[in-house]
Amino acid sequence: MDELKKLLSGIEEVNREVMNNSKNYIDHLSKPIGSLGVLEEIVVKLSGIKGEHIKEIKKKNIVIMCADNGIQESGVSSCPREVTATVTENFVKGTTGVCILSRYYNNDTTVVDIGVDKEFTDPRIINRKIRYGTSNMTKGPAMTREEAIKAIKIGIDIVKELKNQGYDLIGTGEMGVGNTATSAAIISVFSGIDSDLIVGKGSGLTDDGLSHKKAMVKKSIEINKPNKNDVIDVLSKVGGFDIAGLCGVFLGGAIYKVPVVIDGLISSAAAICAKELSSKASGYMFASHLSAEPGAQYAMKTLGLEPMFSLGMRLGEGSGCPIAFGIIESAVFTMNNMDSFNEAGIDKKDYIDIRKQ
Amino acid sequence: MDELKKLLSGIEEVNREVMNNSKNYIDHLSKPIGSLGVLEEIVVKLSGIKGEHIKEIKKKNIVIMCADNGIQESGVSSCPREVTATVTENFVKGTTGVCILSRYYNNDTTVVDIGVDKEFTDPRIINRKIRYGTSNMTKGPAMTREEAIKAIKIGIDIVKELKNQGYDLIGTGEMGVGNTATSAAIISVFSGIDSDLIVGKGSGLTDDGLSHKKAMVKKSIEINKPNKNDVIDVLSKVGGFDIAGLCGVFLGGAIYKVPVVIDGLISSAAAICAKELSSKASGYMFASHLSAEPGAQYAMKTLGLEPMFSLGMRLGEGSGCPIAFGIIESAVFTMNNMDSFNEAGIDKKDYIDIRKQ
Repeated sequence: MDELKKLLSGIEEVNREVMNNSKNYIDHLSKPIGSLGVLEEIVVKLSGIKGEHIKEIKKKNIVIMCADNGIQESGVSSCPREVTATVTENFVKGTTGVCILSRYYNNDTTVVDIGVDKEFTDPRIINRKIRYGTSNMTKGPAMTREEAIKAIKIGIDIVKELKNQGYDLIGTGEMGVGNTATSAAIISVFSGIDSDLIVGKGSGLTDDGLSHKKAMVKKSIEINKPNKNDVIDVLSKVGGFDIAGLCGVFLGGAIYKVPVVIDGLISSAAAICAKELSSKASGYMFASHLSAEPGAQYAMKTLGLEPMFSLGMRLGEGSGCPIAFGIIESAVFTMNNMDSFNEAGIDKKDYIDIRKQ
Repeated sequence: MDELKKLLSGIEEVNREVMNNSKNYIDHLSKPIGSLGVLEEIVVKLSGIKGEHIKEIKKKNIVIMCADNGIQESGVSSCPREVTATVTENFVKGTTGVCILSRYYNNDTTVVDIGVDKEFTDPRIINRKIRYGTSNMTKGPAMTREEAIKAIKIGIDIVKELKNQGYDLIGTGEMGVGNTATSAAIISVFSGIDSDLIVGKGSGLTDDGLSHKKAMVKKSIEINKPNKNDVIDVLSKVGGFDIAGLCGVFLGGAIYKVPVVIDGLISSAAAICAKELSSKASGYMFASHLSAEPGAQYAMKTLGLEPMFSLGMRLGEGSGCPIAFGIIESAVFTMNNMDSFNEAGIDKKDYIDIRKQ
């Protein structure tokens, strides 16, 4: 914990002066002032993270944390436990949804076994296995505090490695049967919203299955009594290795000044934990989409972020990130290639900045 | 009008059988059923338009209709009239917002002078000039019925030409000082919503300027008394050459079975006119984004379409289309490259289709 505390204390605010300069630069491009909306804000935020006006995105990577969840044995998903391992293997084969989207949007993926209930032999699956899945949180803590910290540290270190490899935009993905249940518990604890409103059908459930899942999440919170003022307590009691690892990825983004994109419900739960550990961390986060899971809207409110798009997606895997990468990259490209008012032969004075009114 | 009526009578419903087959195909891909949400719906809709399961998008083009508006002389914009011509010229120079976005997303643009108050010499600006701008609709009809029909026909013919050139996805853009005023009038007439709620600050206005713009739009409607049951009456009285031309582009999409993407407020107004002329036309439309203009939400409701993203954009020019093209193209790529359940080694029976419940 001391090492983590030290890392967290090193997190700096994004650079507001650079952001202002970037905004002023954008306001001289030939268009109604502010008319490219979020595309402009993206570039300003990226510049604040980078510490200088951003001119390009070089390399993109989605970190996919894979882990099994003990609560799976309590029947919160219609999928058998083995699906976690199968999909983890399919990630490195490159055949799942996020893989194909990544091929289209030209980003890499990093597949991490942080706690899958299978021994993998494929070297492309990075072995950071903490254990063969968490314990069943309906009966007690999902993991120890030490394990939660270890998982966070794994995420932080992966960002460090990726940054060293030249990646300057990172996404977050996951695979783990039962992880919409753990995520719902975490979002409920930190948002204060009744978990019944947050629990959704995940990868697919009957109405009865949904009722049961709600009861199991509620039971997990009641039995464990997570302390919302102690993030490690919450993560270890009602979290998962995947969520803790992704929490580390978000923190790593803030520590090493790399922007990190949030995907759906699970990724949002991890982002909330990161923000609770360091409020400055959200300056390094971008929300991609509003997941179709009912808890997603509460997660976004808790994070104070507006998702870029709403495509009714609920696949997970990090599948919202490639699309967000495209929007982010096109924003950077556009703000660096448009004509200024002078170059365009248009008088800036003809445009009134309605953002200031 | 007879020629237009004949063309409209040829518009067919999108192919529901093909759409069903396409949906069934997608439901066998290895992912929670329906979990790619709108990405799946996009592919199903495209297949219905094409008449067979769509496997790729080959070539994309944004048709940018440029025209001046008589109402500009009544002070509804802070921009001088000349900006229409300047930006029209900047489109073919490739330096405006939509041009740079188009470079990133790899689509072409077609710049059409359908009524700009300038004689252009650059051959890349396609000359379909009807007149040097419409008449001032605060004093009477913006154009004659014949002119409105001519503009629609121009849009239809351009789609025909683009289809012949191999374009299979078309976007809609525009430039014309004053055209958020004409669009607001049209959206108000067809939605039945008070124009005061629809009129926005466009490219930028003071609060006083906004009040004046609202009064001018209201006056235009009161003086002209457009008949909402006669689309040509509405378009000719309170429309613009750009809107009428884009209405033709949407109709052309339906006639020649090419999907057409809606951009912002002006483009939406044109789409509404197209849908009013042929209710089947909306089957060929895709809404890209929810513009920051206050009228955009009413336009989307009137069209019955859900925009894909919400990035607070209000530039116009067609700037939402390249981003939508990226999403659409990635959807097609993803649905045609993912593993099936069988290939992925996952049992489809483990997933419950929650869309059916």
